[in-house]
Amino acid sequence: MGVGKELKRVDAYEKVTGGAKYVADLAPKDLLVAKVVHSTIANGVVKSFDLEEALKVPGVVKIVTCFDVPDIQFPTPGHPWSVEAAHQDVSDRKLLNTRVRVYGDDIAAVIAENEIAANRAARLVKVEYEVYEPLLTTDEAMAEGATTLHEEKPGNVLAHSSFQLGDMTFDQALKEEPSLHVIERTYETQPVQHCHLEVPVSYAYMANGKIIVTSSTQIPHIVRRVIGQALGVPWGQIRVIKPYIGGGFGNKQDVLYEPLNAFLCTQVGGRGVRLELTREETLACTRVRHAIKFHVKGAVREDGTLVARKFEAYSNQGGYASHGHAIVANAANAFKQLYHEEKALESDSYTVYTNITVGGAMRGYGIPQSDFATECLTDDLANAIGMDPLEFRFKNCMPEGYVDPHTKVKFNSYGLKKCMEKGRDYIHWDEKRKAYGNQTGPVRRGVGMAIFCYKTGVYPISLETASCRMILNQDGSIQLQMGATEIGQGADTVFTQMAAEVTGITEDRIYIVSTQDTDISPFDTGAYASRQTYVSGKALKQTAQLLKERILDYGSYLLKMPSDALDIQDNNVVDKESRECLVTLEALATEAFYSLDRSVHITAESTYHCKENTFSSGACFAEVEVDMPLGKIKVLNIINVHDSGTLINPKLAEAQVHGGMSMGLGYALSEQLLFDRSGRPLNDNLLDYKLPTAMDTPDLHVDFVQLDDPTGPFGNKALGEPPAIPVAPAIRNALLHATGVAVDSLPLDPQKLVSHFKEAGLI
Amino acid sequence: MGVGKELKRVDAYEKVTGGAKYVADLAPKDLLVAKVVHSTIANGVVKSFDLEEALKVPGVVKIVTCFDVPDIQFPTPGHPWSVEAAHQDVSDRKLLNTRVRVYGDDIAAVIAENEIAANRAARLVKVEYEVYEPLLTTDEAMAEGATTLHEEKPGNVLAHSSFQLGDMTFDQALKEEPSLHVIERTYETQPVQHCHLEVPVSYAYMANGKIIVTSSTQIPHIVRRVIGQALGVPWGQIRVIKPYIGGGFGNKQDVLYEPLNAFLCTQVGGRGVRLELTREETLACTRVRHAIKFHVKGAVREDGTLVARKFEAYSNQGGYASHGHAIVANAANAFKQLYHEEKALESDSYTVYTNITVGGAMRGYGIPQSDFATECLTDDLANAIGMDPLEFRFKNCMPEGYVDPHTKVKFNSYGLKKCMEKGRDYIHWDEKRKAYGNQTGPVRRGVGMAIFCYKTGVYPISLETASCRMILNQDGSIQLQMGATEIGQGADTVFTQMAAEVTGITEDRIYIVSTQDTDISPFDTGAYASRQTYVSGKALKQTAQLLKERILDYGSYLLKMPSDALDIQDNNVVDKESRECLVTLEALATEAFYSLDRSVHITAESTYHCKENTFSSGACFAEVEVDMPLGKIKVLNIINVHDSGTLINPKLAEAQVHGGMSMGLGYALSEQLLFDRSGRPLNDNLLDYKLPTAMDTPDLHVDFVQLDDPTGPFGNKALGEPPAIPVAPAIRNALLHATGVAVDSLPLDPQKLVSHFKEAGLI
Repeated sequence: MGVGKELKRVDAYEKVTGGAKYVADLAPKDLLVAKVVHSTIANGVVKSFDLEEALKVPGVVKIVTCFDVPDIQFPTPGHPWSVEAAHQDVSDRKLLNTRVRVYGDDIAAVIAENEIAANRAARLVKVEYEVYEPLLTTDEAMAEGATTLHEEKPGNVLAHSSFQLGDMTFDQALKEEPSLHVIERTYETQPVQHCHLEVPVSYAYMANGKIIVTSSTQIPHIVRRVIGQALGVPWGQIRVIKPYIGGGFGNKQDVLYEPLNAFLCTQVGGRGVRLELTREETLACTRVRHAIKFHVKGAVREDGTLVARKFEAYSNQGGYASHGHAIVANAANAFKQLYHEEKALESDSYTVYTNITVGGAMRGYGIPQSDFATECLTDDLANAIGMDPLEFRFKNCMPEGYVDPHTKVKFNSYGLKKCMEKGRDYIHWDEKRKAYGNQTGPVRRGVGMAIFCYKTGVYPISLETASCRMILNQDGSIQLQMGATEIGQGADTVFTQMAAEVTGITEDRIYIVSTQDTDISPFDTGAYASRQTYVSGKALKQTAQLLKERILDYGSYLLKMPSDALDIQDNNVVDKESRECLVTLEALATEAFYSLDRSVHITAESTYHCKENTFSSGACFAEVEVDMPLGKIKVLNIINVHDSGTLINPKLAEAQVHGGMSMGLGYALSEQLLFDRSGRPLNDNLLDYKLPTAMDTPDLHVDFVQLDDPTGPFGNKALGEPPAIPVAPAIRNALLHATGVAVDSLPLDPQKLVSHFKEAGLI
Repeated sequence: MGVGKELKRVDAYEKVTGGAKYVADLAPKDLLVAKVVHSTIANGVVKSFDLEEALKVPGVVKIVTCFDVPDIQFPTPGHPWSVEAAHQDVSDRKLLNTRVRVYGDDIAAVIAENEIAANRAARLVKVEYEVYEPLLTTDEAMAEGATTLHEEKPGNVLAHSSFQLGDMTFDQALKEEPSLHVIERTYETQPVQHCHLEVPVSYAYMANGKIIVTSSTQIPHIVRRVIGQALGVPWGQIRVIKPYIGGGFGNKQDVLYEPLNAFLCTQVGGRGVRLELTREETLACTRVRHAIKFHVKGAVREDGTLVARKFEAYSNQGGYASHGHAIVANAANAFKQLYHEEKALESDSYTVYTNITVGGAMRGYGIPQSDFATECLTDDLANAIGMDPLEFRFKNCMPEGYVDPHTKVKFNSYGLKKCMEKGRDYIHWDEKRKAYGNQTGPVRRGVGMAIFCYKTGVYPISLETASCRMILNQDGSIQLQMGATEIGQGADTVFTQMAAEVTGITEDRIYIVSTQDTDISPFDTGAYASRQTYVSGKALKQTAQLLKERILDYGSYLLKMPSDALDIQDNNVVDKESRECLVTLEALATEAFYSLDRSVHITAESTYHCKENTFSSGACFAEVEVDMPLGKIKVLNIINVHDSGTLINPKLAEAQVHGGMSMGLGYALSEQLLFDRSGRPLNDNLLDYKLPTAMDTPDLHVDFVQLDDPTGPFGNKALGEPPAIPVAPAIRNALLHATGVAVDSLPLDPQKLVSHFKEAGLI
């Protein structure tokens, strides 16, 4: 019972049998259907609509265009709100946009009695545009004379931030030590999409003075707030319900189509309206992982001491701000944190509006990109001085007790080097680095690795707050109500274990309320930043302690014993010393409900405002076989070793890592959302977008270094996002080891590899 | 704002526009349909079934019979549970019964893919019975040699209770004073049905380890408990959801078909199953108001002093215990309470099992029956000494400061005599009693009246406990979550007003959560006994005070002022003295959510264990015109005057009285569920069962005597049930005044009147 056990997922049975209810299962019978009309240009202005043909389609109820929506700009990212204007997210889109910034921008919406009518009418909407040249790259968007995409940001730079560590600049460090080995390179990452199984879907209607939206989201409480902002309606008039969802991975940490869905239902007298995206819309019109272009430099002494680094990043934001600069700022921080320079670190980050699909949150939040640049550079630096890259990392990586100089976040439970050791042993690093040293022939092997660090939640950059409520039933079981959301990651299961750990009630008697309903659920900002077991876990622990206190207080009244002489164990109130059962929890609870002397409905609810943070870390080690004529990388062996503190559920933790590694492999080898010159997505479907399948995925190996983190509620720290981070650079470095060819952009797909091998004269 | 205002019903818009969701609106798309197979005998035993033909019907999924259900007997009444076995409700039925005690008893159930298949198959189920003679009256059931209906109760008397007040028996009082005028009569009331608009309907499925039942009920938390008991499943594994319901009037204060529905879903692997009764099933197979036969005696001095009374009541329970003896015990108490005897009161009450439709709770809970007997007797006594019956009541009715000698419940705010005065003035009692003194001809007029008293909730007979939760939203609005249920009576509206009164938040920013969900809603036993504004109102008041305290505590932190210098008024935190606005609640709430210093989700939840009670009272005055040859009573004028403490919402209170009076008129004049000799209902449909329509209903007049009750949370006390109580005896007494004919049984329908008038030689 409790933390550290391999409890079967609490939702396993429901999900396997199809009993679990998702948005589509819950949708009432008589919903209208909405279909968004998307722009067929990437940059321009809608001049006018001709709706005549569309309105003739039988079943069409209403068509709303960008000329009909409130003149309110609103933000979409799933961040806690800030009461200070300076820290608020960028409000740069309307429910429907006249100024088009993305191919597929939302410019109108059809509401119809059925899906066929909605689709037909949407196709018949005629639009007249004023068309501008699409700006697809950060270079194009920052070029002189480029169209301004958002008038608030002339020049298209959404934000720029920089910092410096050490007493001097990178160049000064070079000047001081001309003998330093210097590497200067450009690393590039590509836009990829989350490809969650369940597409964004919601339905909205009005009742009891509220607009009620049921949506597949990671962040119901934030969706509520943003709908209020977008419609100009008090937030309390919005109610958001989140049932089970089929994955999110950060895409649903954005407020996507819920505000439009809410608005549309108000346009038909509050009738229910469903808005479900197609896969094509999901790929083209929701969010992607930002493509970031890194210009980085590193300077290292012959003995392997890292002396200075310089980081310059250009993050391709796409048409709207969404999570915006937070992503590349996070990338810059991770670059800074992962290594220590003796003399200088410089960092410059730009987030730039362009006309491609909007960049948003995606598992890792800037760090998969950053880690690619950081860990490519690290191998390239080690190579430059002929040092083993693992040895180089042991020498220069963030040390035990590391404290971020800006945020003051401390690495409280330090397992990074232990992870490297475990990975080294597993992959037989030293032997294989030697064995694969001098290969010939078209097929070659190599081993590579990468490390990473990742903080836990968003403190102190942003607010960390979470709430929990628990309710004792007559049979001694409890309901556990979290504001935090199950999004497939197993949160409900680990929360159940945590509650068992603290209360002494066994997991089979803990019923987690999986659905969040902003009218009723405790407040929590949602599932992101790998925060839930840590931040929401603290709220749970505090609430469970409160509930236990109240139960024992009632026990004290019943048993006429001081409550501090009592404890709860296996659903019984026991003597704290002898552990003898004094009364079953069932008897106590029934008495508490129905006592004629003292009837009380025992519940507990509390908010935890978290003002702590800590680092997780880990490493990926990969052994690859490269078929150079085919341009094909085969992953022979791969392991992620994670330093995530105490594991609440080792089995689920392993599954979490598997999922992240699989995502990392797609990022490394095959995935990329492509655009033509007009900004139109070329592969916005799962046939052409090369998501790895089970057939493409090698056996995934996982290990952990379990160290109790003193700040974690149960010694735990972040695990959700980290697994996706180090895989791509580890494979790139293994490729480098196998072939000597440094490929500096993702994905490492056959076209790119063949061209690199040709250039290197290897084929 | 607040208590005492005529706030429009908070659910008015939804209910008028059809937006309000009832069980049938919420039912998911893919439910199976269950149909109960009812016995076609009233008394006997099911020997065997032949299911062959029924199982052949395409679409039939499963047929469950009384031989397949758990061997568990369970109770059904909507009473709080008791942990002491002696006080627990009678457990005398199974999910399906082999021993048949009612015509239409539940003996099997068909589950099918659709309603047509379910109905067809139910009709094709063949049953072999062992048949016994039906026992339709209490006399038949108590007769020697009658079949025992429940083996635990040989002789069929479910319960017998008696008490005596004064130093002597009734007969001793007569012996002491042979000059007393004595009246001895038998008064009888009939079985009537609630005829709520929405028939009992529920659907059940299994998910997340629970059986989830959505039902049209007044008592979701009790339904949860009883399902657990009936299925032998821990109560925490049951979840009951109650949306808006279309009336209940006590029928849905019983656990009707929810346990069977829950069981049926477990028999098809947890798939959703809907069970909706027809109107015929509702009339025949749910509950009725108990028919009670009263043998009563009264002895009065020439000067009008009431010296002694004797009460003997036989309550026809029908086939199962349901609310059982509580009904007639309540009737006996009301008989006792309403008048004071100088010397003696004797009381004997019997509840007797028979083979008619089961008696249960219905608006007034025994007191409409009791009041008919009490108030007929009162008029008959007054007549016997030639005294004005109103004067007789002024002289003998329960006095100010009355304390029940058994329960110690005190009449805290005494408005009974003021009600009589108001009614007398309104109806011009004195003039009309004189004017109609000596009429001739076939059409005559009369005025009559009746008084009543009614306590508030069930303390100290049973547990009174209620809980409430409130949640502050970012915009300063709140959610108000009650365990108490809106059943059409306007509870949600008055709760909203109460919350406004205490918190200083205006009603438009108070969102009551109308749906109760036992997994999430605070605990409350439900809507019955006119307890909610009183008992649940206390829980609300206490919780609202707690919420306000927490808001002001945050205000104190924000404003750096002591919290006792602050108050809330019209959605602002104000200086308690100057009433100047210091910060809006919206600003405070947003800060509380998002503060980087102190983030807290402000909520409050508490249980109120109520250990108080008080009496409501009132009077009905009616003027009638009797067409003797037609046997028809026309109500020319009627008023109910109620002493219900402070009215939370006078408009809703008036509507509540209108509804009760209408129900009283049907009870008085036309309604009766009839059975043939085999126990089969003869008029179990709304064509033959004579529920009054709008066309049958005269203008209804209402007045109140508003006295602050010191025990009520807002000076209020019971109002829900009382309006139905005094109407029938007032009309019977008006008929007596008009014609001199005392009709001693209900309803006063043409057949009965004509026969009485013939007997009296009037026609």
